[in-house]
Amino acid sequence: MQRGILLFLCILALGRTAVIYKRCQVTRALNDKLLYDKRLTYLGDYFPKDYKMIVRYEEVLRCQNITSLINQGITVEELRYLWGIVNEDILIKIKEVLPDRHPSFGYITELLKIFKELLLDTITHQTEIIQDIMERLRKPDDTGPRKSVRPKALLDNCFRVLYALYEEE
Amino acid sequence: MQRGILLFLCILALGRTAVIYKRCQVTRALNDKLLYDKRLTYLGDYFPKDYKMIVRYEEVLRCQNITSLINQGITVEELRYLWGIVNEDILIKIKEVLPDRHPSFGYITELLKIFKELLLDTITHQTEIIQDIMERLRKPDDTGPRKSVRPKALLDNCFRVLYALYEEE
Repeated sequence: MQRGILLFLCILALGRTAVIYKRCQVTRALNDKLLYDKRLTYLGDYFPKDYKMIVRYEEVLRCQNITSLINQGITVEELRYLWGIVNEDILIKIKEVLPDRHPSFGYITELLKIFKELLLDTITHQTEIIQDIMERLRKPDDTGPRKSVRPKALLDNCFRVLYALYEEE
Repeated sequence: MQRGILLFLCILALGRTAVIYKRCQVTRALNDKLLYDKRLTYLGDYFPKDYKMIVRYEEVLRCQNITSLINQGITVEELRYLWGIVNEDILIKIKEVLPDRHPSFGYITELLKIFKELLLDTITHQTEIIQDIMERLRKPDDTGPRKSVRPKALLDNCFRVLYALYEEE
């Protein structure tokens, strides 16, 4: 009987290790794709200098928002989920404004694929605070206060929060 | 004496032919650079779909404006000059919003060079109507009515007027 429990615990530990290993791979891929040179080229150099995108306030999740949400008792797992959803939305928006033959189209498509993979392994349980933010995010585009932001600034911010949320891994 | 006059007329004719030949070369270079595929790639595919530039009404010189100005007695030579100045300005504006490493930067720089060459051989004498338009064009950017236009639409229009003004050559 004891041997059975031991085996079960071993399988559980192995499963957990495999999940962590896969997530490490995904976050590493994300880190490589979001390195400064790539952000500068694909989101800076390949866009007109004065080009800005209109986004909702909730669509810009900064490090200070993360700290504030942690102080409100939100777990890192939930924040990772929120950050993944927010940035997946942002990437979809950027992709929508790019013609298929724009030199940044492939880059954004690949980033989007990595975010989709990351979200597969992220918990979906949410506290009320996160649910409220998600609800505001899902409202039609023309409702609520909005601001205009450069595409590069959106991904600069995305990279900073990646570090804040996944540094240990 | 008669032989001297004949020689002078011959030199004059040769000089005129050389000027026409050079202009033909420049307009042909312009025509090649402005072909549909290039306009589509450099001004369409390489810009965000929703990107527009704010320009003055005078900065969009359409075929119908050309017809209307001809009806007011403006010569083709003057219209060529006006068209050259208007499109040189437009290209400068497009170049200003492009980062040096944007994939359309080189294309716009080359087009601008051809326009500068074209303007060297174009008369600068202007009637009052043209002078008025030029004065409105030179006003600071934030004065007068303006409209937002896609960069490709600006060069599509430039190409159409090139045909209207230089078809014979």
